[in-house]
Amino acid sequence: MTGKLIALEGIDGSGKSTQAKLLAQSIDADTTFEPGATELGTIIRKSLLHSSSKDLSISVEAEALLMIADRAQDIAENITPALSLGRNVVVDRFSGSTIAYQGYGRGINTEKLQDAIRLATDGLEPTLNILLDIPADLAMERVAATGKQIDRMEKLGIDFLNRVRQGYLSMASANPDNWYILDSDRPIDDIAELILSRVKDLL
Amino acid sequence: MTGKLIALEGIDGSGKSTQAKLLAQSIDADTTFEPGATELGTIIRKSLLHSSSKDLSISVEAEALLMIADRAQDIAENITPALSLGRNVVVDRFSGSTIAYQGYGRGINTEKLQDAIRLATDGLEPTLNILLDIPADLAMERVAATGKQIDRMEKLGIDFLNRVRQGYLSMASANPDNWYILDSDRPIDDIAELILSRVKDLL
Repeated sequence: MTGKLIALEGIDGSGKSTQAKLLAQSIDADTTFEPGATELGTIIRKSLLHSSSKDLSISVEAEALLMIADRAQDIAENITPALSLGRNVVVDRFSGSTIAYQGYGRGINTEKLQDAIRLATDGLEPTLNILLDIPADLAMERVAATGKQIDRMEKLGIDFLNRVRQGYLSMASANPDNWYILDSDRPIDDIAELILSRVKDLL
Repeated sequence: MTGKLIALEGIDGSGKSTQAKLLAQSIDADTTFEPGATELGTIIRKSLLHSSSKDLSISVEAEALLMIADRAQDIAENITPALSLGRNVVVDRFSGSTIAYQGYGRGINTEKLQDAIRLATDGLEPTLNILLDIPADLAMERVAATGKQIDRMEKLGIDFLNRVRQGYLSMASANPDNWYILDSDRPIDDIAELILSRVKDLL
């Protein structure tokens, strides 16, 4: 018996990390996140997101490949072992993030990205991707309000985040069977309830 | 006018790094190497090759993707800028290494690897790959004699290196137009002369 993989997707500030935790608690699933959930992943995440004052030079293609390498390791260490024990897994970002950020955001051809992703996933896809949709300006305000360090991606600004958001919406609209779009501008508990209700249908 | 890219390939101990330097001097070319020729690359190389006593867990797919990410950055920072100035570039390892080590050595499907490599290279291939061919046992003796630290790849032992060697020979035999196979068990100067003679025909 194999568990199911459910991905939470959206731009930072959409509340997806909070909802990933709440969902995992409700259905007693394992959780993981990308990038950075493995020892190798923490090295990659540090290079990618917080290269601090003196920015490390990373080409858009190298960035995409590092994100995908992080996914390969997360799958090998966390996801596949849990799924094969029959555990359900909730992942905070998965392949959809690569297509949205590095494809729609950075402008890399999305078919090329899919080809590289296949090396990491061997075809593993979430049974359901949950997109917490939020306007980019509102998401940025929420992130700013937390006082957290602004990372490399967020520094790219509102035009970039708007492209990422549109990328998510395009993907989700084109694949309604395994994407569920939720307006994130509502109370946390309401969102959690809607997600749980949709996920229960799958389990 | 665009310069030409020439790759030196072979297992460690084949003498390819020495020959890369000699060739670059002879034809006044720029040099680079993979993995590790950029700031990002040094982080990747450190993770991949010298994860010291307590080995970092890296899946074979993550390893391949990190190698390819390193290539993407080497191309962006070193290779493309030089080629577009009309400079010739000699690179110590390129895509052939990924196919030989991660494909034939580690057992990853080589077409999947080629798909991921395309994201890094956008189709850039060396005008010529020079394979310094050497039996794996002789190569290991040579590396041991240098007293250098044995890295992650070399620790995989002679069966692994034999598969890598056979991978190189398969690729090179299948593509005689852009692979040149040289028996590496002969004096350095003789090899350098043969390489220079072949490369001069291209320039």
